[in-house]
Amino acid sequence: MVPSTALFTDRYELTMLQAALRSGAAHRRSVFEVFTRRLPEGRRYGVVCGTGRVLDAVENFRFDNSILSFLERERVVDAPTLEWLAGYRFRGDILGYPEGEVYFPGSPIMRIEGTFAEAVLLETVVLSILNHDSAIAAAASRMAVAASGRPLMEMGARRTHELAAVAASRAAYVGGFASSSNLAAGFRYGLPTIGTSAHAFTLLHDDERDAFTAQVESLGRGTTLLVDTFDVASAVRAAVEIAGAELGAVRIDSGDLLLLAHRVRQQLDDLGAKNTRIVVTSDLDEYAIASLAAAPVDAYGVGTSLVTGSGQPTCSMVYKLVARATSDEPGAPLVPVAKKSMGGKTSIGGRKWAARRLDADGVAEAEVIGTGPVPGPLADRQLLVPLVLGGETVHREPLDAARARHIEIRAGLPLSATQLSRGEPVLHTEYITH
Amino acid sequence: MVPSTALFTDRYELTMLQAALRSGAAHRRSVFEVFTRRLPEGRRYGVVCGTGRVLDAVENFRFDNSILSFLERERVVDAPTLEWLAGYRFRGDILGYPEGEVYFPGSPIMRIEGTFAEAVLLETVVLSILNHDSAIAAAASRMAVAASGRPLMEMGARRTHELAAVAASRAAYVGGFASSSNLAAGFRYGLPTIGTSAHAFTLLHDDERDAFTAQVESLGRGTTLLVDTFDVASAVRAAVEIAGAELGAVRIDSGDLLLLAHRVRQQLDDLGAKNTRIVVTSDLDEYAIASLAAAPVDAYGVGTSLVTGSGQPTCSMVYKLVARATSDEPGAPLVPVAKKSMGGKTSIGGRKWAARRLDADGVAEAEVIGTGPVPGPLADRQLLVPLVLGGETVHREPLDAARARHIEIRAGLPLSATQLSRGEPVLHTEYITH
Repeated sequence: MVPSTALFTDRYELTMLQAALRSGAAHRRSVFEVFTRRLPEGRRYGVVCGTGRVLDAVENFRFDNSILSFLERERVVDAPTLEWLAGYRFRGDILGYPEGEVYFPGSPIMRIEGTFAEAVLLETVVLSILNHDSAIAAAASRMAVAASGRPLMEMGARRTHELAAVAASRAAYVGGFASSSNLAAGFRYGLPTIGTSAHAFTLLHDDERDAFTAQVESLGRGTTLLVDTFDVASAVRAAVEIAGAELGAVRIDSGDLLLLAHRVRQQLDDLGAKNTRIVVTSDLDEYAIASLAAAPVDAYGVGTSLVTGSGQPTCSMVYKLVARATSDEPGAPLVPVAKKSMGGKTSIGGRKWAARRLDADGVAEAEVIGTGPVPGPLADRQLLVPLVLGGETVHREPLDAARARHIEIRAGLPLSATQLSRGEPVLHTEYITH
Repeated sequence: MVPSTALFTDRYELTMLQAALRSGAAHRRSVFEVFTRRLPEGRRYGVVCGTGRVLDAVENFRFDNSILSFLERERVVDAPTLEWLAGYRFRGDILGYPEGEVYFPGSPIMRIEGTFAEAVLLETVVLSILNHDSAIAAAASRMAVAASGRPLMEMGARRTHELAAVAASRAAYVGGFASSSNLAAGFRYGLPTIGTSAHAFTLLHDDERDAFTAQVESLGRGTTLLVDTFDVASAVRAAVEIAGAELGAVRIDSGDLLLLAHRVRQQLDDLGAKNTRIVVTSDLDEYAIASLAAAPVDAYGVGTSLVTGSGQPTCSMVYKLVARATSDEPGAPLVPVAKKSMGGKTSIGGRKWAARRLDADGVAEAEVIGTGPVPGPLADRQLLVPLVLGGETVHREPLDAARARHIEIRAGLPLSATQLSRGEPVLHTEYITH
């Protein structure tokens, strides 16, 4: 049994529903859009991630008896609303940027259409997923650029909530990571998992040689031995003596990684272990990874900075009503709506399309967002694809498809997209409104 | 059925287990401690949070058939290890700082004792919970200090992973928040939930007055009306006309909150709505809250900055083997162990006690951590309490107990603890080792 997602919801969604059911406005056809007014400071592109998880969450958004009893007991909503919720399932349409796409300020990365009642309820859980997963994928993408082809291993489970960690592994994979230490991510999403041993394993044994011997006997010569518990040079010598030149890898988890990588490579080569790889794993972020580009490092393990979005643990995506019908009659026309108050939180009303315009060389040059008809030259460059139609999910794909899409699309951005330094969004947003 | 927590685990815990089962060292009695080498930069105290969730996670850490099949299929571990895992439950002891306590660099906030095999497996999930929940509780505590008695409402679900959000609501409550918008937090932990309406509700209706009328008719005059969709002054006037002086509250979610709060208070008073409260909710953090201390604000709603730990979304807690038996014979003596490599990640070996020394006025003055006997004057100031003994949980408490403890203990710290400005930990750590 998959647990319901219906309570991953702010209480005001349900109180709004109650009041709108009573006023009758609940049944007006409504269009909500998910977008962000800005990228995290200094970032040049965002990465859409979590789309597949949103589809799961929408399918499992049901009010079962235990939930209805809770809402009744706590007097969250009245009896007519409880009755309406008991029959709830989303029957509307969802369009969105496909997972792995990039986005910019204003990009309508998801559009949810249905009655107000059915669409408003999804706000909180849709934003939770997209805000979290996109933040992690954006950090992962930057790290993948910095690693330029060397494999990245996600090891951050211990630094974030135990289930956020599973989603973070998934997002890291979409952003370009190769594997994860997180067994739940392997179980849930089929991600490749990795891991061999920690300092505790060495300290458990009477000495380091005993530990290495035990590990090699059990896990084979292809294993990765952790060489920085005591003295790195002694450990590398012992590791090759015990495992031979077939030793898979050594891992360095502390100290000056640049210096140590060079020394350890030299030592391994001198010992004849030319194919033994070097894995580094100490508090890396995209900048530390980039600084090791010239070092003889074969793989990076990244923890804290990945699961915390490398300084940007969330995105600022919002879920806004942009259009609604003038009445609940079938066929009533949609009118654009938008908050108009002072204070900077204004938005542009109307149901939007989005397309990415390319320059003469085929490089992306603008994110074009509009209401009304799509200009001919942009018709086949549109970004929103159907995800759910009439309540049925119509767009499922393996995670590898999202990962491959991200790599391909990032390669089509202007070169400055992959600079690590802070800057402006690499595409500007143009609006064509009617 | 409660889902198993056994896969919230880094793969290397299981490969270490396999190798140690084979070498025989797996059965050596071992002591692991959770501590942090430093507080987040500029923070003056940490807040222990998640203890209750750790106890749940340990109880539900079981390898059921679906998990064992996965581990077998993916060849994570060998057959003898799978057999051992099938019978796993933790039968050791856990001591810890009680939830809501404060901590400092080096504080052994949790101590896990058992065989290496049974204790090493818990590393990842214990750290996930404590690192996440303590980060949120620390931010909440600072915000509660800044709010100095005015109620704080947690509204951050949409800015973090959907289940991290539930734990964040719980941690916010321990840190001093009064309520949460998160229905799942109400369901799971019995937290008070709050919420009325968003801008979408106003925009759904033909005009603001219709929306206010619908809301008041459905939710009563005691409801909170959102007044910043269009013009705040017009909205406040309409709100009082429609709900009367019994209007519960108005909410302002954008703009210059300091200015608006004063204006709206004056307007409400002039309209005779002297008991109508003002709630503010726009991107608040502890500094913004403090800046509103002199404004006529009755309650604060906090989202993003709370669930992201106000700039510090994780703690740097580690789970280290500090002592282990010299053999797997019953009664074999424990020896202290510690990583000794260069690079700053050293730690102090040995099973530790911790106590907080008070000065002559009864104010905390040092975190004293030691191995060996506890000095007499500190004997009744010890911080570690039994949580699990012989595998049985012995310390369950309602969340209100942790919340009350935190408030009481924070009040016993030196005054500079509650300064918002960056500084050093307010207590220094002293070691008494033998």
